[in-house]
Amino acid sequence: MKFQQQHMHEYVIKNIQRHIEPTEEETQIFSSLAIIKTVKRKELLLTEGDLARHQFFVISGCLRTYTIDAGGKEHVLMFAPEDWWCSGDLYSFLSGQKSVNNLEALEPTVLLQISKNNLDILYKRAPKFERFFRILFQNAFVFHQNRINAGLSKPAEGRYDLFTEAYPGLENRIPQKYIASYIGVTPEFFSQMKASMFRRKS
Amino acid sequence: MKFQQQHMHEYVIKNIQRHIEPTEEETQIFSSLAIIKTVKRKELLLTEGDLARHQFFVISGCLRTYTIDAGGKEHVLMFAPEDWWCSGDLYSFLSGQKSVNNLEALEPTVLLQISKNNLDILYKRAPKFERFFRILFQNAFVFHQNRINAGLSKPAEGRYDLFTEAYPGLENRIPQKYIASYIGVTPEFFSQMKASMFRRKS
Repeated sequence: MKFQQQHMHEYVIKNIQRHIEPTEEETQIFSSLAIIKTVKRKELLLTEGDLARHQFFVISGCLRTYTIDAGGKEHVLMFAPEDWWCSGDLYSFLSGQKSVNNLEALEPTVLLQISKNNLDILYKRAPKFERFFRILFQNAFVFHQNRINAGLSKPAEGRYDLFTEAYPGLENRIPQKYIASYIGVTPEFFSQMKASMFRRKS
Repeated sequence: MKFQQQHMHEYVIKNIQRHIEPTEEETQIFSSLAIIKTVKRKELLLTEGDLARHQFFVISGCLRTYTIDAGGKEHVLMFAPEDWWCSGDLYSFLSGQKSVNNLEALEPTVLLQISKNNLDILYKRAPKFERFFRILFQNAFVFHQNRINAGLSKPAEGRYDLFTEAYPGLENRIPQKYIASYIGVTPEFFSQMKASMFRRKS
């Protein structure tokens, strides 16, 4: 088990090295501040009204961030499959305000988890991680800006194309209703749209 | 003129000091890498198909980022009034790909402008700015995530409320059609909606 955990920490470090080059000491600081966690399918990592206390990095599995509107309808905000970071509600994480989102595991999921407190310690003790998270939030900003652009100006098919680009292969792993919600259409419209896209391609 | 420019650099530094505490030397590095620029109303700072080369900080005035869809219709992605940072198209700025957005001044606008190249020099020579931009992109991410949430789950009135919260007073400065576009409704629907909101309040 200990060997496995070390292996997982190494996997995360490799991912971090795509953007920064931490020293041996800095990676040790990082690993000492983060823990590996396993959650079951349908387990909630964050519930609306609670405080978002962690940043998660998905080692395997998939998470879904969603809101529930006044009428009880769910709306999918984002997915976090392998190699994605996710907090569920970044505003809650940063401000200490109650979360407006929920965060659920769509599959059995292995995560690296780092608390707000430990992240602040990390920034102090290994400032290179400022750069890492600067790049991360920068990319997240681009991703969300594309999504807003698509929501304003692209038809549903174009929004679906953006989804498959952002999340390669995910369309075969998760319930179709969540993809419909993510692109902002009803499940019925979504299945008709996919059938007509399929007819055109074949 | 030189005095005025120095005054403007100081204004930007004060703003930066909300998040980090740069030394005298670091603020001098920053100021030496950025320039003050004035643009006229309706002037374009970035055109679709061009490369986004700068990050802008708005000292006074207001910018508008928008796309034009296949049917020639404009869609407003964001506004940048005083104290906002804006690149027009962050993906283009980061990747060197062509911009899909346009960036226009809605008012005579005074900007601080820093190029991609100079920003990279800044990160190297004054790494504290990694932290500054990490916080900045973090906040931008939260802002956009709220907007996606609102787009998926809030009616037009709720999306208008979010606009007035994010941009206090801006509704009295800019053409109403841009606000309608920002919240994703037609100008006709928008003016009916505002009339009915006004009736309910009075």
